[in-house]
Amino acid sequence: MEFQSCFPIWDKLKKGQQARILGSLVSHRVTKGAVIHSGSMDCTGLLLVKSGQLRVYILSEEGREITLYRLFELDMCLFSASCMLRSIQFDVTIAAEKDTEFWVVPTEVYKGILEESAPAANYTNELMASRFSDVMWLMEQVMWKSLDRRVASFLLEEASIEGSITLKITHETIANHLGSHREVITRMLRYFQNEGMVSLSRGVIEITDADRLEELGNQP
Amino acid sequence: MEFQSCFPIWDKLKKGQQARILGSLVSHRVTKGAVIHSGSMDCTGLLLVKSGQLRVYILSEEGREITLYRLFELDMCLFSASCMLRSIQFDVTIAAEKDTEFWVVPTEVYKGILEESAPAANYTNELMASRFSDVMWLMEQVMWKSLDRRVASFLLEEASIEGSITLKITHETIANHLGSHREVITRMLRYFQNEGMVSLSRGVIEITDADRLEELGNQP
Repeated sequence: MEFQSCFPIWDKLKKGQQARILGSLVSHRVTKGAVIHSGSMDCTGLLLVKSGQLRVYILSEEGREITLYRLFELDMCLFSASCMLRSIQFDVTIAAEKDTEFWVVPTEVYKGILEESAPAANYTNELMASRFSDVMWLMEQVMWKSLDRRVASFLLEEASIEGSITLKITHETIANHLGSHREVITRMLRYFQNEGMVSLSRGVIEITDADRLEELGNQP
Repeated sequence: MEFQSCFPIWDKLKKGQQARILGSLVSHRVTKGAVIHSGSMDCTGLLLVKSGQLRVYILSEEGREITLYRLFELDMCLFSASCMLRSIQFDVTIAAEKDTEFWVVPTEVYKGILEESAPAANYTNELMASRFSDVMWLMEQVMWKSLDRRVASFLLEEASIEGSITLKITHETIANHLGSHREVITRMLRYFQNEGMVSLSRGVIEITDADRLEELGNQP
């Protein structure tokens, strides 16, 4: 897989711009669990996922977490180059949820191209609008939706990503995705188990009634 | 006050682009309370506030509200032209909090200029990044900060906007800003009153101990 065929506006860039990207492009390979970007301490560049899965989340001062969105194959991340836009005044952390390969276009190179190229700038706009929409969706979930519905939706989303109804995930991890506490998630999952929607064993949650989980998750 | 002197990248536009904006610009004047944009039902255009104050908020299916941010003199709003960016997949409502004058650059005109002009596209990027930062700040408030601290911060922000420690605001309105319920806000304000931080009378909240409110609002 080549960068050229994965970067959506490649053909709209000038030859010189394409050459600057190819000349500075860095390919990375990280293992599951690696933190590849953390707050404002680094400004790596524009990130394009080749394979694997990344998680973008925020951290509270007390160390609580909430997942903003995930990045899969061919997804791009702007916030690893947040210093590129001076109006971005928040910090995210990016970690690998699976072994992941990705390309990085260094910040300075991408910034230079943005300044010259309306197609690149407009593409970046769409990218940001898309992440903004993800965060607005999350905001609505957090504001209007009770935790039981959010846990139900999360379990189904995980099952869909993994292609399996047997999820190897800890209660702590679910709490970190949803901005909650482990104890609260454990209590919720036990309630789901009593209702016959899941079956719990050490480190594993098995979905036993996906229809009811979906019904619960879709309630307004 | 002329549009030219209020639009930050005016000088970076070409003569023809400037002419297209001036030829299509519409000036509006609305009274306090007017809803000037509502969800995806309209896509007015890029909005620039001349004077007054606008509030941008989201609505739940049950009619609950939460304020995303406010727009003051010279602030611009992109989401009144959200159809311009296909990746924006959320709806906001914009209402006048005071009598307000604003300009609108029609969506089609601004979109055409974005496609040609890297400076316009990059400026739009900064604008979106800035609103994104507002929403991320709000997300952190909602996730990690308890309601008493958010109410304390809100009262001080209002006092700062109005330039007065006597706030003419209902408990319902505060609930709608913070995504809460009137009853919850009333209980909180009574607690603040008992603690000597505010004094309540019909339709009026007077701040009596700004220092303690600030201390409360700044707690992590």
